[in-house]
Amino acid sequence: MDTILNAIGRPVPTELDGRTLKPFSGLSFDTSGNKQYSPRIPAACHYKNKLLDSLDKAIDACDIKDGMTLSFHHHLRNGDGLINLVMKKLADRGLKNLVLAPSALFPVHETLVELIESGTVSHIEGSMNGPVGRACSLGKMQKTAILRSHGGRYRAIQDGDLHIDVAFIAAPCADAHGNANGLVGPSACGPLGFALADSLYADKVVIVTDNLVPFPCYPWSIEGGHVDFVVTVDSLGDPGQIISGTTRITKSPTRLLIAEYAAELVEKSGILFEPEFSFQAGAGGVSLAFVQYMSERMQASHIVADFVRGGSTRYMVEMLENGLTKFILDGQSFDLEGVRSLRENPHHIETNPFVSYNYHTKGCFASKVKVSVLGATEIDLNFHVNVNTHSDGWLLHGIGGFSDAADAGVTIITAPLMRNRVPIVVDRVTTVTAPGESIDVLVTEHGIAINPRRQDLTDRLKHSSLPLKTMQELHEIALAMTGKPEKPEFADRVVALVEWRDGTIIDTVRQLVPKD
Amino acid sequence: MDTILNAIGRPVPTELDGRTLKPFSGLSFDTSGNKQYSPRIPAACHYKNKLLDSLDKAIDACDIKDGMTLSFHHHLRNGDGLINLVMKKLADRGLKNLVLAPSALFPVHETLVELIESGTVSHIEGSMNGPVGRACSLGKMQKTAILRSHGGRYRAIQDGDLHIDVAFIAAPCADAHGNANGLVGPSACGPLGFALADSLYADKVVIVTDNLVPFPCYPWSIEGGHVDFVVTVDSLGDPGQIISGTTRITKSPTRLLIAEYAAELVEKSGILFEPEFSFQAGAGGVSLAFVQYMSERMQASHIVADFVRGGSTRYMVEMLENGLTKFILDGQSFDLEGVRSLRENPHHIETNPFVSYNYHTKGCFASKVKVSVLGATEIDLNFHVNVNTHSDGWLLHGIGGFSDAADAGVTIITAPLMRNRVPIVVDRVTTVTAPGESIDVLVTEHGIAINPRRQDLTDRLKHSSLPLKTMQELHEIALAMTGKPEKPEFADRVVALVEWRDGTIIDTVRQLVPKD
Repeated sequence: MDTILNAIGRPVPTELDGRTLKPFSGLSFDTSGNKQYSPRIPAACHYKNKLLDSLDKAIDACDIKDGMTLSFHHHLRNGDGLINLVMKKLADRGLKNLVLAPSALFPVHETLVELIESGTVSHIEGSMNGPVGRACSLGKMQKTAILRSHGGRYRAIQDGDLHIDVAFIAAPCADAHGNANGLVGPSACGPLGFALADSLYADKVVIVTDNLVPFPCYPWSIEGGHVDFVVTVDSLGDPGQIISGTTRITKSPTRLLIAEYAAELVEKSGILFEPEFSFQAGAGGVSLAFVQYMSERMQASHIVADFVRGGSTRYMVEMLENGLTKFILDGQSFDLEGVRSLRENPHHIETNPFVSYNYHTKGCFASKVKVSVLGATEIDLNFHVNVNTHSDGWLLHGIGGFSDAADAGVTIITAPLMRNRVPIVVDRVTTVTAPGESIDVLVTEHGIAINPRRQDLTDRLKHSSLPLKTMQELHEIALAMTGKPEKPEFADRVVALVEWRDGTIIDTVRQLVPKD
Repeated sequence: MDTILNAIGRPVPTELDGRTLKPFSGLSFDTSGNKQYSPRIPAACHYKNKLLDSLDKAIDACDIKDGMTLSFHHHLRNGDGLINLVMKKLADRGLKNLVLAPSALFPVHETLVELIESGTVSHIEGSMNGPVGRACSLGKMQKTAILRSHGGRYRAIQDGDLHIDVAFIAAPCADAHGNANGLVGPSACGPLGFALADSLYADKVVIVTDNLVPFPCYPWSIEGGHVDFVVTVDSLGDPGQIISGTTRITKSPTRLLIAEYAAELVEKSGILFEPEFSFQAGAGGVSLAFVQYMSERMQASHIVADFVRGGSTRYMVEMLENGLTKFILDGQSFDLEGVRSLRENPHHIETNPFVSYNYHTKGCFASKVKVSVLGATEIDLNFHVNVNTHSDGWLLHGIGGFSDAADAGVTIITAPLMRNRVPIVVDRVTTVTAPGESIDVLVTEHGIAINPRRQDLTDRLKHSSLPLKTMQELHEIALAMTGKPEKPEFADRVVALVEWRDGTIIDTVRQLVPKD
């Protein structure tokens, strides 16, 4: 395997599994210019009746063969029942070497490990949260997995790097034409945007629904004009795991302090008072608290955001309903209040990775966000961030929207200085998900480090009471508490590629040699 | 010029202006299988500031050269000021042989005739209503014009038959990212769907607006991720001509009778009482009356349509607000009530030619409509319909959505038997826009002719009091009143091609030899 050092000094292969790879070359590298993938031209006369009453009939109709690439979305999260169901059927049919291209996998998909071991699945192009990632770390896949961000996945499909033969789209609400959304029904999940690229570019598109409604199903997050078959099933999964009844803010004093620091930073830097204020925060413990603290500060200063970006939760919905933001731009809803608001409030807008995150567009929303608050498993002295592996080397997380959301005006990483006596601020991250160039601030409970590239931010904050420190100082504080951590041992084999959002390779994940 | 007889016996060229042409081969002919046009891959880093303060700067930025193809939409109808403005600037710059590809032109665009005569514009691919069509009839264009339906235009752009170098999109509401809709502002027009294909597939996309709003402009009928430049201008046109204050039903007893017959036919045939009832009708005098009469019959029989399709008018809006239809699926709004409803009522849904009309999809809405009511300039003994030329040979109208809407369950042509002492029911139409195979019924004030292919309809209606006649009978009644009409004289030269919605050539329009 030939390797080359990329722009941040990580060795990456130039070719793998017959695919030519480009090394990461910096944030403003231009990988554009080629032609997008062009789907085949269909004719409407062949699509008069798309309705099928079983998954088996759809599998028959799609003529799935060994080696094909199948895709799924992850809007049903840990409540998804479809991936396991379809893949089991394909395994039972004796299919081999399938490429599985989900937008993400969750612990509920642990059963796929068997299909990887048996050769039904050759490898995964997509996010792996939990057990399947663990299997990847152990080298169980025949070929190299590929990790992409939400925007990067859209890009890869649009650009033809990831060709999907058959897309199975779990649809909480759909009509017989294939128009579909995620807003109503027993499996309601909110937006359905992670499946958009699949619907536009896959050869065959199968809508699978447990809630068939009369035409027209509206909004049509997925448009029937792209859909080959509509299949009805009894249930798409476990509603209790698809969406939280309600999300709750952390009670951890450490995490609350980190969120408070982050909110104070946004205020004291003056960013809060600049025109067109907006922010993005997710549904993690710190993020929810950050949303709440920002709300309080905005209310006190009579600030109305132009928009906030979710994953939406009831805390964001409260902002919208209390007039603290004009819009929620929502890629996925994390609780029932998020889904209700998206369904009812015309200022709560469903987005998809094309409009939000895709770097290979004529602009996307990510760069319009003023402040983005993101988590990490590690961050290092160069501000490089890892969200995929842990310090012990296990691949346990997808990229999510990290690389895309890091395009915000100010990208803030919030993280405790250590977790389970393992430091989060390290000398060198195990895996680089995003380059330091894209990261502006680290906020920990022990202090705040501002990227030296952002002298402007340091200048704005130097008279504040915020505990500004260098990354080196934070690293030393961490080490003083944890001692020097053991490094994991890796074999030579690359088990996963980490793509930057433009399709270049920013790092690799190597096979782990387990400790015992 | 080599010609061949197509499936309805019309001679059509096999090659013209260097383009290979396929003859029309029937309604279910499969022209699919090739690859769609693939746009170039852009990179977001080049689109940080798209805002320009003059059209000249946009023209400079787009680097427009001789021979390029420029496109516009026609949602501003006869109130559009943009096409004339841009084309005049290009003429002043000395550009030659431009291909103009508007979705339609109106009388206000008469000034383009000079640019055709001077060679700035070589020809037009798009609908021509009025003076520009007249110029085409006289052979003033250097090359052959191409007439396409709304769905056919989308198809042609998607399939790469019509490549657009620069799309200028007049946007009544837009943000600096290029998100745009037609719902609010001084030039509000309703939907903006006729510009969708242009935005997706043109090399360069310019949003021109007289109403710049903060990001995010929502709904985004046009998505900023496809937009290169956003230009602000003082005014896009004449609001009074963009949209009617209010549409009014015809007072002509003849036309009211035709509308009444059509509504009675829908009821007496039983179609009204079948599941999933829906209909489509436009904004012409007969169509408005038809909508009103259908409303009354639906109210009396407690029927609720699954949907109705516009152009929307206040009559359709009343249906929605009175609970007579669950949805309006709207491609263009024809009066202020239509625009208001689209803006305010979540069951009034904006559509575009991809979802509604494009034959090269995996199905579109046209075939889901149970009854479609359409006008015509001529219809003949074979039920072939002409909506482009008049019996005197002048090319005066575009196809609009005719060929697409004719895919409905029952396609009804409503027309008076004669206009200005010229028969509408003729032995052979001057130009075939749509084949008789796609037409089910002709309703005139003197009787109703059912296509012999639809024996089922005849059977359903034979005991009704409706005046059923054969097409031959209607033709003879017309001739008895008008005398045998003079036929126009044509030169050999083909000045326009009439495409069927699948991209095949259904007929040609030849150069007219004027009477005096």
